[in-house]
Amino acid sequence: MYKAPVEEIAHMLSKVAGLDQAMEKGEAGELTPDLLSAILEEAGKFAGEAAAPLYEIGDREGASYSDGRVTMPRGWKELYTAWLEAGWNGLSGPVEAGGQGLPIALSVAVTEMWNSASMAFGIGPTLTIGTVEALHRHGSEKLQAVYLEKLTSGEWMGTMNLTEPQAGTDLAALRSRAERRDDGTYHLFGQKIFITFGEHDLTENIVHFVLARLPDAPAGNKGLSLFLVPKFIPDENGAPGLLNDVNCVGIEHKMGIHASPTCTMIYGGGAGETGEPGAVSWLVGEENNGLACMFTMMNSARLYVGIQGLGVAEAATQLAQSYANDRLQGRRPGNPADMVPIAEHPDVRRMLMTMKALTGAARAICYACGVALDLAHSNDPQTARFWNDRASLLTPMAKSFSSDIGVEVASLGIQVHGGMGYIEETGAARLYRDARIACIYEGTNGVQAMDLVGRKLSLSGGEAVKSLLSEFDAVVEDVRASNRPEFGETANALAAALADLREAAEFLGRNGGDIALYGATPFQRLFSLVAGAGYLARSALASDAAERVALARFMAEDVLADVSGLKRRTMAGAVLAETSVAILA
Amino acid sequence: MYKAPVEEIAHMLSKVAGLDQAMEKGEAGELTPDLLSAILEEAGKFAGEAAAPLYEIGDREGASYSDGRVTMPRGWKELYTAWLEAGWNGLSGPVEAGGQGLPIALSVAVTEMWNSASMAFGIGPTLTIGTVEALHRHGSEKLQAVYLEKLTSGEWMGTMNLTEPQAGTDLAALRSRAERRDDGTYHLFGQKIFITFGEHDLTENIVHFVLARLPDAPAGNKGLSLFLVPKFIPDENGAPGLLNDVNCVGIEHKMGIHASPTCTMIYGGGAGETGEPGAVSWLVGEENNGLACMFTMMNSARLYVGIQGLGVAEAATQLAQSYANDRLQGRRPGNPADMVPIAEHPDVRRMLMTMKALTGAARAICYACGVALDLAHSNDPQTARFWNDRASLLTPMAKSFSSDIGVEVASLGIQVHGGMGYIEETGAARLYRDARIACIYEGTNGVQAMDLVGRKLSLSGGEAVKSLLSEFDAVVEDVRASNRPEFGETANALAAALADLREAAEFLGRNGGDIALYGATPFQRLFSLVAGAGYLARSALASDAAERVALARFMAEDVLADVSGLKRRTMAGAVLAETSVAILA
Repeated sequence: MYKAPVEEIAHMLSKVAGLDQAMEKGEAGELTPDLLSAILEEAGKFAGEAAAPLYEIGDREGASYSDGRVTMPRGWKELYTAWLEAGWNGLSGPVEAGGQGLPIALSVAVTEMWNSASMAFGIGPTLTIGTVEALHRHGSEKLQAVYLEKLTSGEWMGTMNLTEPQAGTDLAALRSRAERRDDGTYHLFGQKIFITFGEHDLTENIVHFVLARLPDAPAGNKGLSLFLVPKFIPDENGAPGLLNDVNCVGIEHKMGIHASPTCTMIYGGGAGETGEPGAVSWLVGEENNGLACMFTMMNSARLYVGIQGLGVAEAATQLAQSYANDRLQGRRPGNPADMVPIAEHPDVRRMLMTMKALTGAARAICYACGVALDLAHSNDPQTARFWNDRASLLTPMAKSFSSDIGVEVASLGIQVHGGMGYIEETGAARLYRDARIACIYEGTNGVQAMDLVGRKLSLSGGEAVKSLLSEFDAVVEDVRASNRPEFGETANALAAALADLREAAEFLGRNGGDIALYGATPFQRLFSLVAGAGYLARSALASDAAERVALARFMAEDVLADVSGLKRRTMAGAVLAETSVAILA
Repeated sequence: MYKAPVEEIAHMLSKVAGLDQAMEKGEAGELTPDLLSAILEEAGKFAGEAAAPLYEIGDREGASYSDGRVTMPRGWKELYTAWLEAGWNGLSGPVEAGGQGLPIALSVAVTEMWNSASMAFGIGPTLTIGTVEALHRHGSEKLQAVYLEKLTSGEWMGTMNLTEPQAGTDLAALRSRAERRDDGTYHLFGQKIFITFGEHDLTENIVHFVLARLPDAPAGNKGLSLFLVPKFIPDENGAPGLLNDVNCVGIEHKMGIHASPTCTMIYGGGAGETGEPGAVSWLVGEENNGLACMFTMMNSARLYVGIQGLGVAEAATQLAQSYANDRLQGRRPGNPADMVPIAEHPDVRRMLMTMKALTGAARAICYACGVALDLAHSNDPQTARFWNDRASLLTPMAKSFSSDIGVEVASLGIQVHGGMGYIEETGAARLYRDARIACIYEGTNGVQAMDLVGRKLSLSGGEAVKSLLSEFDAVVEDVRASNRPEFGETANALAAALADLREAAEFLGRNGGDIALYGATPFQRLFSLVAGAGYLARSALASDAAERVALARFMAEDVLADVSGLKRRTMAGAVLAETSVAILA
């Protein structure tokens, strides 16, 4: 059963991602090192003892649909209620709405734990967090007065409604429409698909944030507006009143995250109690500026999807390590008489080490992104901009790398289990099935790669990348200066990888268009591996633990060996453009 | 829906794997190029029109267990019967037992099709083929007289029983025991797990091939004997008679291949109609020589598991290509007004090309292994030995590389589908779930890697590897000599990869023990990629199709970019041995 790695999480947050410095400078709210430890301990206890035991039943029973209503698996409502009452939803929420105003990085770290316990449990609240941010930043005072406190506490849950059958990645194709009404509200009509937690019985109300078009809106992305659409329209006391014209008409039959209902929603189909068709809606932000408001949610959501991959990776690693320690099979030269735990066999050791290195690398990237989001709230505009750039740069890597390695680590976890890994009761397969969606939603990993190459490399004239890489240069120097022989060739391997990364980035800077787009996915992997290795080396430098030095070395000398090939692939766009014509004819 | 790539399969068999030459030399039985085409056409029709439509129901309903009996999904018995009556089971079976005596390579190729249609359908008969080989080679005349014809036709199905709860990879730990009886038969007692098609209602009898120990057998691997244990003991007419003391006590709840029952079998538990406990059994081969007999089955089974990965990869590629051609999303510079099929976006193109290249590489390796198995039957001992070595060398790569890329290609297939890929109804997730087991059973891919490094590199004093690599050297020269600019840097990239492969192989030759074992898995990938690229280049040279040249080039210039990193990983054993102590403390 999952046990939260509290000490490692605290170390990564404080010593690697920079939360220590943020706390020293008073940029982490009320947080102190002691409070940090206490919160992580409590969260770890909840994740391991309350949430993780419900993972299996959540997967097996799943959410079920009947007649417009979704019922969660047995025990899940009680689990959510206990979680809510412990105050976890509002951890980094706005103080004026009852939140605790603690750093996003801390919220990121505890969210890793919820996802390790069960990804389907972890996902719902992260969407609510996104809606809190959007409402807090873009919503009118009136709207905030009704909804902000309830969403911050998690008493009501929030959803994000973007996708329509003809519009997934391509939001310009959205067709849902909203009509202005005399009282300042809107009537919304349309169909949305793949709506996570669009309907459920965890909370007494659900607040949908929906992208739609006004009648006179321009075509494409610039004609989208964001609307708040409650399932039940609050009455004058703020309590759930009339059922709005919002209807869940079905949920998807998915490979995994069975306890996360994926809903098809009909707005304005005539299902409400309001007396006329059209879902009663309120504008969030300005008309036709919905995409910008939605991106407030999406950036946060992207990081939190990365955290899902990380959470699964940690859980899969623990499960595999535990099995490998217990399972006796085969013999070793030093002990030919007795069967040994399979954790003693080199090939299994390679798998376990790879799982740990990739998980650690993803954790560092995600946490660094979380701390950057916190520091981006600085009152000093230059500091704010610097950290905003850093968060923007790290977000696509946090999302894509962590979700990719979530699948890879879960797959290695199955392999360590041998045949038992393919049997559902073991739990390894469940992690693998769950993890796969994280590479897809909130912008596929291909979209993340294009974002990294097309927008993030050039942030602030390239300074965002330069400043991050110079941090890793400093890590290389610090490793060299440490004179610790246990680092082996870590410094040289990392320095060589940094050189490859720079060469690849310069190539992409010189070559736009398809040449760069063909190279986006390998480049994203390359950059993430180098960043992960840099952070793991920093983690080792900040610690006396032999394990951390060894992991940094393994990462640099083994895992980073992929970098030279990834560089070549990044720069192979012209070959791909040419050969693809015949191959895909 | 799956459509067998008949022309590509014929090309790969004939021009790349060498079946053409085998036919010319009369070493391919009655097979002629025309007959080959006709058989492939027929098989393709059966796979696409009869088998593939039952894949979904097979996955959704699965095999079901009740009271010792397993019921197959609706329509599956009729499917199997039709397949059987068309003569597919005996395609490469012995002529004297009613088989058609056609090349194994042909059987391999049509088995790819069955697995593309449904892996759960493909797997059952391949086990029967293995038992036919074992019985034909090691069984007494009397035993062959009763069973060989029925197994060759597929009227009865065969199973392989190795695994016990405490003995998976480590067969030395097997405990099932057999007692000699006065009439020359044996009584068998024990529990076997993970027995594929151990019980089902497809055939009126099931013939189990079971490893067990005699009372006076030496400990370990050298004390295992192979027994034939029929579910129903044939009466004097050879018809199924009394129920033997063989009982299926349950089936596993697996992530995939739901229509392939994975059974727990109890032998000698008292379930039979014979009047006394103990499963009535017949020895196959000699006492205590069971492992050698079992390996006759396992080598064939390993290739056929590789074919499962290949079959899934082909199906996943077709599904993704078809979706990518149909799904409109996003715009392209040349056509900013209209949405385009996603197959026009570079990142999607990269995925589709990778799927095609990996699938083609796996196909070439598997088919080359199949042709080598055929040529190993040569009457000339030197020729037989040469091709036996070749088959032995290629088998671990055919098994592991093809199963690995089966998962990778299926995963890319999901990614191409975006959110739809995660919905079960689409079919992409099903392929991904099914494919995962192939990396595990019949010897995990880690075991295959150890076999490659520990036994196959040194075959015939290293000549087996040398001769294969010199074939690829010749391919490099032929590409150069072709002077076709469309090959780009194919020759140089392949030559560099061959040099890396040789360097890694020499390193493993110099370093035994753990250093080599740590490098086994990356080396296996490295060797397979180089072999795949070599074969794809040969495929291009033997063809006028621009697609084949472009695919060989993409394979060499993009996919082979991984090779340098894999070489470094292969040679990183000392670092892994050292760092693992701290990391896995």
